[in-house]
Amino acid sequence: MTVSSSSSILQAIQSPQDVQGLSLTELTTLAEELRQAIIEVVSTNGGHLAPSLGVVELTLALLKSFNPDQDRFVWDVGHQAYAYKLLTGRRDQFHTLRCLHGVSGFPNRSESPYDHFGVGHSSTSISAALGIAVGRDLAQQSNKVLAVIGDGSMTAGLAYEGLNQAGGLDRDLVVVLNDNEMSISKNVGALSSFLSRQLSSRWLVRFKRELEGRLRQIPRIGEDLVTYAKRSEESFKGLFTPGMLFEAFKFNYLGPIDGHDLRQMTDVFKQVRSLDGPVLVHVLTQKGRGYTPAEDNPTYFHGVGCFEPETGKSKKISSCSLPPYTKVFGRTLSQLARQNDRIVAITAAMPEGTGLGEFAEEFPDRFFDVGICEQHAVTFAAGLATEGYRPFVAIYSTFLQRSYDQIVHDVCLQNLPVTLCLDRGGLVGEDGATHHGAFDLSFLRHIPNLAVMAPKDEPELQDMLATALAHNGPVAVRYPRGVGPGHAIKDSATALPWARGEWLRSGSDAVVLAIGSRVEPALEAVAQLAEATGKEIGVLNLRFVKPLPVEEILEAARQSRRLLVVEENAAIGGMGSAVLECLAENDALDGIRVRRLGLPDAFVGHGPQKALRAEVGLDAAGISKALRDFLSE
Amino acid sequence: MTVSSSSSILQAIQSPQDVQGLSLTELTTLAEELRQAIIEVVSTNGGHLAPSLGVVELTLALLKSFNPDQDRFVWDVGHQAYAYKLLTGRRDQFHTLRCLHGVSGFPNRSESPYDHFGVGHSSTSISAALGIAVGRDLAQQSNKVLAVIGDGSMTAGLAYEGLNQAGGLDRDLVVVLNDNEMSISKNVGALSSFLSRQLSSRWLVRFKRELEGRLRQIPRIGEDLVTYAKRSEESFKGLFTPGMLFEAFKFNYLGPIDGHDLRQMTDVFKQVRSLDGPVLVHVLTQKGRGYTPAEDNPTYFHGVGCFEPETGKSKKISSCSLPPYTKVFGRTLSQLARQNDRIVAITAAMPEGTGLGEFAEEFPDRFFDVGICEQHAVTFAAGLATEGYRPFVAIYSTFLQRSYDQIVHDVCLQNLPVTLCLDRGGLVGEDGATHHGAFDLSFLRHIPNLAVMAPKDEPELQDMLATALAHNGPVAVRYPRGVGPGHAIKDSATALPWARGEWLRSGSDAVVLAIGSRVEPALEAVAQLAEATGKEIGVLNLRFVKPLPVEEILEAARQSRRLLVVEENAAIGGMGSAVLECLAENDALDGIRVRRLGLPDAFVGHGPQKALRAEVGLDAAGISKALRDFLSE
Repeated sequence: MTVSSSSSILQAIQSPQDVQGLSLTELTTLAEELRQAIIEVVSTNGGHLAPSLGVVELTLALLKSFNPDQDRFVWDVGHQAYAYKLLTGRRDQFHTLRCLHGVSGFPNRSESPYDHFGVGHSSTSISAALGIAVGRDLAQQSNKVLAVIGDGSMTAGLAYEGLNQAGGLDRDLVVVLNDNEMSISKNVGALSSFLSRQLSSRWLVRFKRELEGRLRQIPRIGEDLVTYAKRSEESFKGLFTPGMLFEAFKFNYLGPIDGHDLRQMTDVFKQVRSLDGPVLVHVLTQKGRGYTPAEDNPTYFHGVGCFEPETGKSKKISSCSLPPYTKVFGRTLSQLARQNDRIVAITAAMPEGTGLGEFAEEFPDRFFDVGICEQHAVTFAAGLATEGYRPFVAIYSTFLQRSYDQIVHDVCLQNLPVTLCLDRGGLVGEDGATHHGAFDLSFLRHIPNLAVMAPKDEPELQDMLATALAHNGPVAVRYPRGVGPGHAIKDSATALPWARGEWLRSGSDAVVLAIGSRVEPALEAVAQLAEATGKEIGVLNLRFVKPLPVEEILEAARQSRRLLVVEENAAIGGMGSAVLECLAENDALDGIRVRRLGLPDAFVGHGPQKALRAEVGLDAAGISKALRDFLSE
Repeated sequence: MTVSSSSSILQAIQSPQDVQGLSLTELTTLAEELRQAIIEVVSTNGGHLAPSLGVVELTLALLKSFNPDQDRFVWDVGHQAYAYKLLTGRRDQFHTLRCLHGVSGFPNRSESPYDHFGVGHSSTSISAALGIAVGRDLAQQSNKVLAVIGDGSMTAGLAYEGLNQAGGLDRDLVVVLNDNEMSISKNVGALSSFLSRQLSSRWLVRFKRELEGRLRQIPRIGEDLVTYAKRSEESFKGLFTPGMLFEAFKFNYLGPIDGHDLRQMTDVFKQVRSLDGPVLVHVLTQKGRGYTPAEDNPTYFHGVGCFEPETGKSKKISSCSLPPYTKVFGRTLSQLARQNDRIVAITAAMPEGTGLGEFAEEFPDRFFDVGICEQHAVTFAAGLATEGYRPFVAIYSTFLQRSYDQIVHDVCLQNLPVTLCLDRGGLVGEDGATHHGAFDLSFLRHIPNLAVMAPKDEPELQDMLATALAHNGPVAVRYPRGVGPGHAIKDSATALPWARGEWLRSGSDAVVLAIGSRVEPALEAVAQLAEATGKEIGVLNLRFVKPLPVEEILEAARQSRRLLVVEENAAIGGMGSAVLECLAENDALDGIRVRRLGLPDAFVGHGPQKALRAEVGLDAAGISKALRDFLSE
């Protein structure tokens, strides 16, 4: 299968401007071709399939109705932008989607001048678009600025903050609400039911009461009217549209319109072109549209690995059947929760992604999906902790960046026993720079009262969860995306000795001090090197980023004059830095040489996790090379 | 004047339960006594006067209507909690408000069992209260949980995230909206005008059109009705209450009620006691109520220094007439903006606090107060930067913690030239643990592409702003609360040499490497010590936290074997850590001893800035002691 035949409309598109010349019939054909191209590439490379399929017509309608060379499109989260990429100069490279040095899975300013704002995290689009619109106004230009945001993304406070200022400033700004009634999973929260017009009955009762009061005052016909109003409840219900909420924010509301009806959309967008001030266009789309397996299971096909395009069936790339850390986490938390009814689990719109699906089924009353709002997730957990509960908050490392203040101010300052479970610590792979958990050790370890751990393998993750539970204070546990070394999962987890490291081998020529996912490749590198060179090289599994395993670190400095600290976290401010601080504080630096091997001071791109780790020198080969260089100095 | 006479009602209160036994007349008298006590103490100690005066009756009504031994009160931001403190066991210590080891200016769990959730930053209350309510439900208790939140705090996304989940979960939860139409300054954004019923005319037009359509369908009387409806526009307008917004979030809305009418409030709260599910009570209060100077100027009296209680006139404690850093920042930015029309300034609801008042007056089109939403402020700035503007975002260090993800994901990943201006870096004094800018160097310096600087004095702050402007990428400049050493302010700022430190004196016995506000006391300590002991002690003003002044740091290591790094930031992960990394990377550790003097790994309390700096050993005396100990080892 090739991406598209040479006679296709897609193939003929040289610039996004070309879309404007197409008829509705041609656009319908092009939509089909775009879906084909997307399914083909994603079935091979993996990616965000369902969101991108859902907005194919919307993308075409936007490019048809607006001027891509002048107007600005800001995509929220960005995992729905594949059609946009195909139409804005990246068709011929699209087969490299998410590959090393290939097309990014997200809009990216350095990839294309049509990507006006880079993204990956949710709910930034209204704020960014408002900034762009204000810039346009300062420059006295008149181009349109559009933010395309999903209803899921609207649950995050940042989107609300943007709406609130946009309505207050009254600038020319178009927000396209891409409403598919989902975030990754089913949407949660009050807003979602509002959008789908399931109004609160309280509201209706109140409104009817007030309306009746006023109708009664109408001379002569008042009472008749009240009787009529009472009979026609449905009719009055219909007065309320989701638009009222946005009109409250001083947006001009248009919709809802069918996001797969090209004619309706282009008509409405034409109208939008002539409007000034903040406008919200409510577009109803179907996630996974046009591909039956994705329509049937949009959550699975939200972000997906390789699959057979004909059936949607997953293609296992390797025969690997190891449980990923995500699963080990979820299973262990359920184990612990069976023994301790104070344990509650919290996710920010990622019950499946964080491995809490089983927990949610077994303990529905103790499981909370708060929606895409990492700030609230952490403060909500702090509230639960003040009542004696033990909240485990499972959020990907990169998204927990959004909770930094709440971790400091609500959890740690009050020394509350909230456990932060950071999946996807380190390099995540194909999702790239916006999604790597590159900074958590650096942004967490200076927070007073917080303990920070990272496990070397699956059973150690289990034990660290038990350690967190045994500790009466805030704890963070970070673990990588994907599978671990494959060590057997235990039936019950045991608390580890507090603030102690684990000696895996000793050595006088050098000691590698490794944390988390880098312990195993460090061991591998050292074993090979020791055999090849006869050198005595030690390996210390640090386990604790904080409080530091001071005793073992000082022992390492006594064993050898060469210490190499290895971590899958920014080298700046991370584990290596902590070891240096420890040595300085204990006056143990004299005569010691310390090397830090961590992530570079740059944003790492996308590609297979393995390839990225090799690129930054953090796989066994990279560690081996660093060690050899170090030993030969 | 004493706090209150022994015969007063306030003096007779032994526990908050006693409020329940008081009559409305007694409560009115008690309100007067509380105001007296608050004005007396704040006029001497400084503090958050206007917010606390505004909620005296509200506090009494809450304590009268609910059970303080079982129910939970969660105060948002917490600078309105003085009356609550006086009534919940802290009356006799209240004169120590904000003093070293005295009563905290904010609710604080370690201070009182009646402070159910500690606070200082805005908009956490609904999330925390929801967590507490869920904990109550899990424990099958039936106490009430109340969040008291200002309309200003409602502009932050965290509050919205809390509302959204609360409405979705449908738990028994009371949100008291304390609506005084202000945050610290005048409120901004669409929501504020909604609360004050200034409905968008678009909304009304739409509603009328829809209503008319439906009325027309009513048999016989439809057309009459449409005519009537057209004539009675005001009547239909009245159908819309601020409550609709909250009802959209599935809250039961009560109000608005007069927040100074004890009878009305106690009546409504009695009704609230019998309601289940999420309830929002909209209470209208006046900031500064009952004290004419504060009623007349609520922004000035929001947080205030010492003043004459009779007149409200400021009492200058010292004769110090130096301009604080805040003013130097504001003035310099205006200077630069006169030369460069691409400069725009952004504040998150603190135009006065950040020194941008003059800028706002001179460049109203280039000034943006986004409301209390630090996340949005930074992403909005990123949007502006993509259009070629040079945004300077002025946010206190402690509040910028809330923008960490936006700094990483929206600014630095895209390498956009946004300048973050962090006022209140380091210890802020009386506002205490929630407000110290203790972590910024640690949470910023690992972010790729970001440059981080801190000035030693006023003209250096000016030059750093010029340096930031000259640099085509993201920059953070952090400076302390209050006045600097008093060096003359320049008429025009000059860019500093990039990534270079400044030698202030050289020395072979030790070198002090200092950053920002600690350079001056370090110089002072070194001068005294050098004179007293004859030792040769160098002082390096580091200027750049990132990129590091590598050349000067290595020169320091050549000059002396003893390096003392001094910073007013967490010692963990901060400047000292950066110096260690630099030495390790350049293999310059051998034979070197490094000491780091920074903030301890603990939350520092409240009290005068000077006293706190002395307590943590970061004043000249503390630096001198650390140096002497170091030299004698």
